[in-house]
Amino acid sequence: MPELRKDPILGRWIIIAKERGKRPTDFIVDRGDVKGGFCPLCSGNEKTTPAEVLSYSSQERSPNSPGWDLRVVPNKYPALVIEGNLDKMGEGLYDKMNGIGAHEVIIETPRHDEVFAYLPQNRMLNVLHAYRDRLIDLAHDPRFRYVMVFKNHGKAAGASLEHSHSQLIALPILPRMIVSELQGSKIYYKYKERCIFCDIIYQELKEKSRIVCENEEFLVITPFAPRSPFEMWVLPKRHSSAYISMNDNQFTLLTAIFSECLRRLDKCIANAPYNFVLHTSPLRSQPLDHFHWHFEIVPKLTQIAGFEWGSGFYINPTPPEDAAKYLREAEL
Amino acid sequence: MPELRKDPILGRWIIIAKERGKRPTDFIVDRGDVKGGFCPLCSGNEKTTPAEVLSYSSQERSPNSPGWDLRVVPNKYPALVIEGNLDKMGEGLYDKMNGIGAHEVIIETPRHDEVFAYLPQNRMLNVLHAYRDRLIDLAHDPRFRYVMVFKNHGKAAGASLEHSHSQLIALPILPRMIVSELQGSKIYYKYKERCIFCDIIYQELKEKSRIVCENEEFLVITPFAPRSPFEMWVLPKRHSSAYISMNDNQFTLLTAIFSECLRRLDKCIANAPYNFVLHTSPLRSQPLDHFHWHFEIVPKLTQIAGFEWGSGFYINPTPPEDAAKYLREAEL
Repeated sequence: MPELRKDPILGRWIIIAKERGKRPTDFIVDRGDVKGGFCPLCSGNEKTTPAEVLSYSSQERSPNSPGWDLRVVPNKYPALVIEGNLDKMGEGLYDKMNGIGAHEVIIETPRHDEVFAYLPQNRMLNVLHAYRDRLIDLAHDPRFRYVMVFKNHGKAAGASLEHSHSQLIALPILPRMIVSELQGSKIYYKYKERCIFCDIIYQELKEKSRIVCENEEFLVITPFAPRSPFEMWVLPKRHSSAYISMNDNQFTLLTAIFSECLRRLDKCIANAPYNFVLHTSPLRSQPLDHFHWHFEIVPKLTQIAGFEWGSGFYINPTPPEDAAKYLREAEL
Repeated sequence: MPELRKDPILGRWIIIAKERGKRPTDFIVDRGDVKGGFCPLCSGNEKTTPAEVLSYSSQERSPNSPGWDLRVVPNKYPALVIEGNLDKMGEGLYDKMNGIGAHEVIIETPRHDEVFAYLPQNRMLNVLHAYRDRLIDLAHDPRFRYVMVFKNHGKAAGASLEHSHSQLIALPILPRMIVSELQGSKIYYKYKERCIFCDIIYQELKEKSRIVCENEEFLVITPFAPRSPFEMWVLPKRHSSAYISMNDNQFTLLTAIFSECLRRLDKCIANAPYNFVLHTSPLRSQPLDHFHWHFEIVPKLTQIAGFEWGSGFYINPTPPEDAAKYLREAEL
């Protein structure tokens, strides 16, 4: 069983995924493109993945057979496992717990040749719906406290399969990222009695220099202090702490803006590797006045990303105002 | 002038190095090896670097000419600049300050063909002395609060030059990494009245399973909750919060152990890219009972490092006990 371990100084939790059992010889220093060949995510190869936990289809079909538009399946090599109790243990001064959780793959299209940023709008909408549906379903398991939804696009960003997909990990702990955001935004709220994200949106709409694109419900900005060149945040204009609380109109408008900003990125830097992570409130949380759900899209431009990874300290050679201008002016 | 900007939610400072002015076309997605050709760090090319701020030599020479064993020069493309006042400014709800600081390159050898882990012991000792000498010198500038000493080895770890070198950045702020460590270790100290790092050393020496190598003064372990496979921490066995307080014997023993653990890593994963960062107390700090200086060595094995960079959440496929065993058993 995998293990969750806590850094005793920083309080940062790490998954030790023993089952993935990497030995030194598995780390060939290879930085080429994602491999082609047989693809377990393609239509027709449903039997090669674990059984689906969710699927959308516009036609009659039986589970785990072709005809789907989107499938969600457990990861074949999960970082966490779904069965077992959540035993917490000490080991001298260290803390650990069983690696209980879920690790799922959202297969965004049956077609191998479709690129996420250019998915037809109905497919993109399916993806955003699938995130919601899995968040709602996984919240029923009391062992889980958070679901991290993320995408690795391109090998440099950690993608091991070329076929367009995103992932989610249901966790029995709150990841440090979300703990820090909840704390930071709460401190601001105590002081100002306003949501810091709402204030950011207000200021960005007034200043305009960091706006990438917007519509009635959503704003995409390059953040004031970005870790990475061309980093973007996708923020709902109306205050809401939970992704799952979006209405139909908001889903439609998110679909449009999410595609648009990723296509703008692609026009600026062709096939840029990137990660995005959904930041939303913990499972079963009441609505929070101080926290505001959003996506963070972080391009992974390897030539300049370096010791940042080891130190948590970032040097960014592209001011976000410049990046926003390039992104705004990209011809779609 | 570069700018330091603070993320308003997380309190994380970022350097916006405008002078490095990257446009979209500068981000060619290229992951090959570090380029060869003309090397500004080689002996004979002293005039192509900014004038040296420190050098060691076993023979008579004039500054910025051949005959040196080690040189420290300002970075030609600095992330921060040395001249100017430390003006702090608000911009609506955001905080920023002038990008005042120093950014220096420690050229570890005049020879292009020498690899850091295999440097002769006298050269390695020079490198470790140079860190100390620059830390002491830069502490005289009251604008600086911290000096981050680090190395990027291999292109995947951010090295832009092949010639063996490390870098330092003198900062007018405390980086988040060190703030978090100081806070975390202080909480433990208040509770236990003991240094958490000393307790870790005690436990690791007893358990043995995460020991990579040790000598009279130093211990190298794979940490209990490592971000990366084969991550290593180099810890002085005796409590000390400041790197600069080492005595001669300790420098000699650090030289030996630092080389040894990097050679062990290289034997396990040939030419693994890695970053290391020196974690030491802030400049002009009094000795701290709760903090313990150390090096953190983080291999950058790109196939598995992915969304961690964007989310601060880590999945590690190699238990540190396995990594320590491989490292211990590597034949040197």
